[in-house]
Amino acid sequence: MSHGYIKDKGDYLRRLRRIEGQVRGLQRMVDEDAYCLEILTQVSAATKALESVALRLLDEHLAHCVVAAVKAGGPDPHVKLREASDAIARLVRS
Amino acid sequence: MSHGYIKDKGDYLRRLRRIEGQVRGLQRMVDEDAYCLEILTQVSAATKALESVALRLLDEHLAHCVVAAVKAGGPDPHVKLREASDAIARLVRS
Amino acid sequence: MSHGYIKDKGDYLRRLRRIEGQVRGLQRMVDEDAYCLEILTQVSAATKALESVALRLLDEHLAHCVVAAVKAGGPDPHVKLREASDAIARLVRS
Amino acid sequence: MSHGYIKDKGDYLRRLRRIEGQVRGLQRMVDEDAYCLEILTQVSAATKALESVALRLLDEHLAHCVVAAVKAGGPDPHVKLREASDAIARLVRS
Repeated sequence: MSHGYIKDKGDYLRRLRRIEGQVRGLQRMVDEDAYCLEILTQVSAATKALESVALRLLDEHLAHCVVAAVKAGGPDPHVKLREASDAIARLVRS
Repeated sequence: MSHGYIKDKGDYLRRLRRIEGQVRGLQRMVDEDAYCLEILTQVSAATKALESVALRLLDEHLAHCVVAAVKAGGPDPHVKLREASDAIARLVRS
Repeated sequence: MSHGYIKDKGDYLRRLRRIEGQVRGLQRMVDEDAYCLEILTQVSAATKALESVALRLLDEHLAHCVVAAVKAGGPDPHVKLREASDAIARLVRS
Repeated sequence: MSHGYIKDKGDYLRRLRRIEGQVRGLQRMVDEDAYCLEILTQVSAATKALESVALRLLDEHLAHCVVAAVKAGGPDPHVKLREASDAIARLVRS
């Protein structure tokens, strides 16, 4: 079974590699005693980039997995929606 | 001039390396077609870990740079406080 | 046409009235020169209460409006999902 | 003893009354069966308005209470900074 986001795997991987680079850049900044608030600015940038990945994953999850479950009928859509709601709550609260 | 967080450089580096590992793990999950919501859970975990780093940096910034500026007198504390407030606003809104 | 949350109207109204009371309490605290961080604690409580209302509205929206649109077929589910995604993004970023 | 925000009491009260009005507007929307996502948009607006109040309270707290504690010397600045850090963490996580 394939998941909704799969058609853009390359794009997800590119974004995540960029975030990995940002996190390595943070290590360099700490190592070179950069100014705390400059490091903080970069932490916010990496956090925002992760948040964008999360929102996109969620969009594709709703558009694919949830819609597929609704079309298939049965009790599964409720499970899928509950899962999606929990994921949204975690995102909003993080 | 040394910055406030420096005494714990090793701890910051350890946390950031762990976050780098989490981001690499996310790439692996995407690559291996993991379930979207499992990936999302891991994205939330990495975001929370970055947020903890940010909060700690901010604490140490307030306790060191801002306090030092206040003690030194002059117009600098206001600049430092303005900078710190902007950083807090970025964190709260990210 | 009735909306998904309607069956719990009374509960929404009770929660919102409680939040209104919290905001009036904040005015009283400011008026009586309460300690800034005590006021801040109450602001956080009101914010969290609003966030809970938002998450619940979103859950019911997904479970009712979006599911109904998917079942009805046609282009509407995509519009509904786009709207829901925008609402989720606003929540995550606020 | 007067708190840092006091000089703008009128402005805080005006903002909080506006937020109270927004929360009453939300009750009206629920009562009149407004569309879920429209209600959600208004919830986000009220949340953002509360967040602005919180950020401003925090700024003034840092600029007044914390700076005063540092200037006065003694162990109090650490207590004040700890309190401020806890308040920032609650805001970032809410």
